[in-house]
Amino acid sequence: MIFSAKELKQFATNIFLKIGCSEEHAKQASDVLIRADLRGIESHGIARLSGYIRLHEKKRLNAHPHIQIVHKTPSTAVVNGDSGLGLVIGPNAMKLAIEKAKNVGSGWVAVKNSNHYGIAGYHAMMALEEDCIGISLTNASPLVSPTFSKERLLGTNPISIAVPTKNQPPFVLDMATTIVANGKLEVLQQKGLDAPEGWLQDRTGHITTDAKGLVKGGSMRPLGGDRTHGSHKGYALGAVVDILSAVLSGANYGPWVPPFVAFLDPAPDPVGEGIGHFFGAMRIDAFRDGDEFKFHMDNWIKRMRNSETVSPNEKVLIPGDPEREMTEVHLKNGIDILDSIVEDLRELGDKLGVSLK
Amino acid sequence: MIFSAKELKQFATNIFLKIGCSEEHAKQASDVLIRADLRGIESHGIARLSGYIRLHEKKRLNAHPHIQIVHKTPSTAVVNGDSGLGLVIGPNAMKLAIEKAKNVGSGWVAVKNSNHYGIAGYHAMMALEEDCIGISLTNASPLVSPTFSKERLLGTNPISIAVPTKNQPPFVLDMATTIVANGKLEVLQQKGLDAPEGWLQDRTGHITTDAKGLVKGGSMRPLGGDRTHGSHKGYALGAVVDILSAVLSGANYGPWVPPFVAFLDPAPDPVGEGIGHFFGAMRIDAFRDGDEFKFHMDNWIKRMRNSETVSPNEKVLIPGDPEREMTEVHLKNGIDILDSIVEDLRELGDKLGVSLK
Repeated sequence: MIFSAKELKQFATNIFLKIGCSEEHAKQASDVLIRADLRGIESHGIARLSGYIRLHEKKRLNAHPHIQIVHKTPSTAVVNGDSGLGLVIGPNAMKLAIEKAKNVGSGWVAVKNSNHYGIAGYHAMMALEEDCIGISLTNASPLVSPTFSKERLLGTNPISIAVPTKNQPPFVLDMATTIVANGKLEVLQQKGLDAPEGWLQDRTGHITTDAKGLVKGGSMRPLGGDRTHGSHKGYALGAVVDILSAVLSGANYGPWVPPFVAFLDPAPDPVGEGIGHFFGAMRIDAFRDGDEFKFHMDNWIKRMRNSETVSPNEKVLIPGDPEREMTEVHLKNGIDILDSIVEDLRELGDKLGVSLK
Repeated sequence: MIFSAKELKQFATNIFLKIGCSEEHAKQASDVLIRADLRGIESHGIARLSGYIRLHEKKRLNAHPHIQIVHKTPSTAVVNGDSGLGLVIGPNAMKLAIEKAKNVGSGWVAVKNSNHYGIAGYHAMMALEEDCIGISLTNASPLVSPTFSKERLLGTNPISIAVPTKNQPPFVLDMATTIVANGKLEVLQQKGLDAPEGWLQDRTGHITTDAKGLVKGGSMRPLGGDRTHGSHKGYALGAVVDILSAVLSGANYGPWVPPFVAFLDPAPDPVGEGIGHFFGAMRIDAFRDGDEFKFHMDNWIKRMRNSETVSPNEKVLIPGDPEREMTEVHLKNGIDILDSIVEDLRELGDKLGVSLK
């Protein structure tokens, strides 16, 4: 079923208002959520709305958090999200990072006591309008095994970095530190297809192509896949994201990260508060004349785009290209939401007295 | 032939003095170089000494550079390395980043007009003694093809991140953003062995297991290997390293990065000055009480180490473990230098009037 971004945003806003969010928070949260749908990352969009509401029902999500700076220096801060929506705490913390960048060149904000913050790219991209390079990291529910391990000890721990440009569209890296994001697996499961070799391991730690491998107690492999192909690098990158997001802020890390799904309980022996994020902003002109930088950034992008390709049917992409193209299509033609998700949303709407369309 | 680290360091220092480096610079450069040998990264150690000297002979390396801050804010700076040794400019810029971290919580220094800076990890690890998280990035000679490309457009562009701990050894990530570092390929070439499938592509862009593939005009694949296994992520990470190191500082980027080997000329149409680096330091207590952080960092490490493994013969490693163990062995037993390298060093010593041992 096709919806406009506006319709989905209005529905999500109304739902968040119903659980007690302020109008400002409800709108902010919906904007993050629907931006994921627009960018083609359906797994992080409206499909998750009922998941957030179930966390609220379980009293694991505070609808009117008192978001607070608990530690600071001129270029750094730690924010306590008071168990609020990561969709609200994230933009809040990113704004603080940008403010610090305006004052002293760069700003770095670690966040504890938060929940899932949507797509990492939303927050990093906030820096673009301010002529800053934006950085956004978060830890996540443990689904990934370090190289040689058969336990789930890390999340898909994404990294997003957004870089301003002049005439070219901005450079927007937004990647899980695993081979694929979990959302891609869910699509294969729905279609009953196998997963490519290397993405997953079963509960004994051996490679499986069963797309349902995760549900059966297996785990995702870090970027690289196996030791010979550099899985220790993917593991190490996921580790850095975990450390900056949680060990630095005082959130839960590693296997202690509370699961997003409400039917799983958080670990009984937490090592911190909630989940953690890490945000950065660097003002371009804190390094170099802004126009000069943007000229060379455009030149960098053009050189990569003009690269000779292996096959004439392929082109070298710039990080952010697929998501931007998808956004244009979705703004023009609307967003196609799976029937099962529409059903889930209607059920949610009926329960809270909000109509979908 | 076995040498002590002290012998190698003394030899390298004497060589650097002979080309006109100050005593301080000669010692600093040798310390970076030999640390690579100690850590088992032979490709970046004394084996490269004659390479640096050949760059000097070609007038591409300035033995007494005037290293200068050309732009700054309280938390950022750009340094012009004046074509000096990256082995000297790197530690200099990292010190500046740490100084800024002491003043305002974090420090970020982009460097232009530099040369090869040795192992990325040396610089990041300088932060450890100051209770800072250290970050070190550099771009490098183009050897890597972005996903779908058959051109060499990026270097192996490494990322190093060092994190202080309490009783555990520090966490030290030091990785190329390719599947393997170039040094590993050189070892296979010397032994006449094939490279594992996926590491390399030939000049037409197709996968090759010929370890000499690079010499024959092929290129390295980014971490991930192919599109299905996330090579676009390795490419994007290498891109970020290039952008922060060079587009932000005013150095050459992408295919314009001047080659380390003196027999190849730099591009006739440079887009910046020399090669670029990027350094960061974040004071731990700019986020959280230092002892608390270190307690949890130790806990993070112990949890990973104690992970159940796929095979009883394997253990989950922490980034930095192999290099630290290698250092202990090398400090105890000396460093075994390949005959061909010893010969190269003797030749260099004879030319400059420095004896090896």
